Amino acid sequence: DVLKDKLGVYLVTDERTDVANCLRVVHQALEGGATTIQLRRKHDDGRVLVEMGHAIREMTRAYHALYIVNDRVDIALLTDADGVHVGQSDIAYKDVRKLLGKDKIIGVSVSSLEEAKGAIHDRADYLGVGSVFPTSSKSDADLCGIRGLQEIANLARERQTKPTPIVAIGGITATNAPDVLQAGAHGLAVVSAIMQAQNPAEAARNFCNLLAK
Amino acid sequence: DVLKDKLGVYLVTDERTDVANCLRVVHQALEGGATTIQLRRKHDDGRVLVEMGHAIREMTRAYHALYIVNDRVDIALLTDADGVHVGQSDIAYKDVRKLLGKDKIIGVSVSSLEEAKGAIHDRADYLGVGSVFPTSSKSDADLCGIRGLQEIANLARERQTKPTPIVAIGGITATNAPDVLQAGAHGLAVVSAIMQAQNPAEAARNFCNLLAK
Ligand code: NI
Repeated sequence: DVLKDKLGVYLVTDERTDVANCLRVVHQALEGGATTIQLRRKHDDGRVLVEMGHAIREMTRAYHALYIVNDRVDIALLTDADGVHVGQSDIAYKDVRKLLGKDKIIGVSVSSLEEAKGAIHDRADYLGVGSVFPTSSKSDADLCGIRGLQEIANLARERQTKPTPIVAIGGITATNAPDVLQAGAHGLAVVSAIMQAQNPAEAARNFCNLLAK
Repeated sequence: DVLKDKLGVYLVTDERTDVANCLRVVHQALEGGATTIQLRRKHDDGRVLVEMGHAIREMTRAYHALYIVNDRVDIALLTDADGVHVGQSDIAYKDVRKLLGKDKIIGVSVSSLEEAKGAIHDRADYLGVGSVFPTSSKSDADLCGIRGLQEIANLARERQTKPTPIVAIGGITATNAPDVLQAGAHGLAVVSAIMQAQNPAEAARNFCNLLAK
């Protein structure tokens, strides 16, 4: 399954760094083997997002990686993204599908079995499952833990001949990644573990190696 | 000119009130004669914006008013808005046009002659000019004053056989509205003067009467 593999090392951009620095780290992560880049910057205006989107589109194309936009379907359309990722309070899956057409990838964040059932029923292309571990950026309500991840992964397998790929997110590091993969994740979504790494390329390479095992 | 008239009493939604209350005030403003409703809520997530957009679309249709979405082209597309309003740091006019097609209305915020020249050159359907008066929500950098409004209105008239309609915004009240219209504005964009009024319908009616003079 090509999509499942492409979701392996899934970098979500940081909001803390400036634009130029953010793009530099994205480039290094791709150099290290990141397979998907999600543009997620909730506090940037549209014009900056379009500019970043174009830059990430060029880089991901050169590295045969996926480029996904968080929430803003308009930015995804303008910058020729491969898809959109939405949370439970963002535009609903069906509405995103209307705007993007049938061929683009739509990922949906879920943190409970019920949300996972809904997203699978909608035929989301992949599930973003988390938070697996507590993180500073997410409230306790969204915590699903390794146990929750496992239950959702089982659900995705049981119900379907072709299981919906699962990308785990939330506090994932090279240390805990083996447990996350063991629990059924196909992809590892990370922010800080790459964006804040001394050497982002090396950090991405580490995750690639863990996936290859 | 139908568009110019439709922009007369231009209500921009408040961010301070809750969704139900916001929609109730919009309804009252339409009852009082508001001619355009702009959905502008920077801190709401996509799903809430879609819900509000559908509600405003229904109400504005019933009252033959325009429904414009601030910044989010995706929300405008999903809720069948009449157009989109963008600021200088939002998605650029040309990009908005690509997504919306040629028939929808696109308004552009300008606060200087130079920005106005750019927007007129782009063929924006109308200009949002301001802030005319200081407001709590805008920095000093964006203040153009009555003088700036007048210069921009003159520019729009001089350069074109069919002047670009001008909607003034920023601190406009029933008291200062006559000066704003005298300076060349075709429309009065207001937030607090209607959203925070004891009687929003009456407040809207007052502005209608000032425009009719
Ligand atoms: Ni914010």
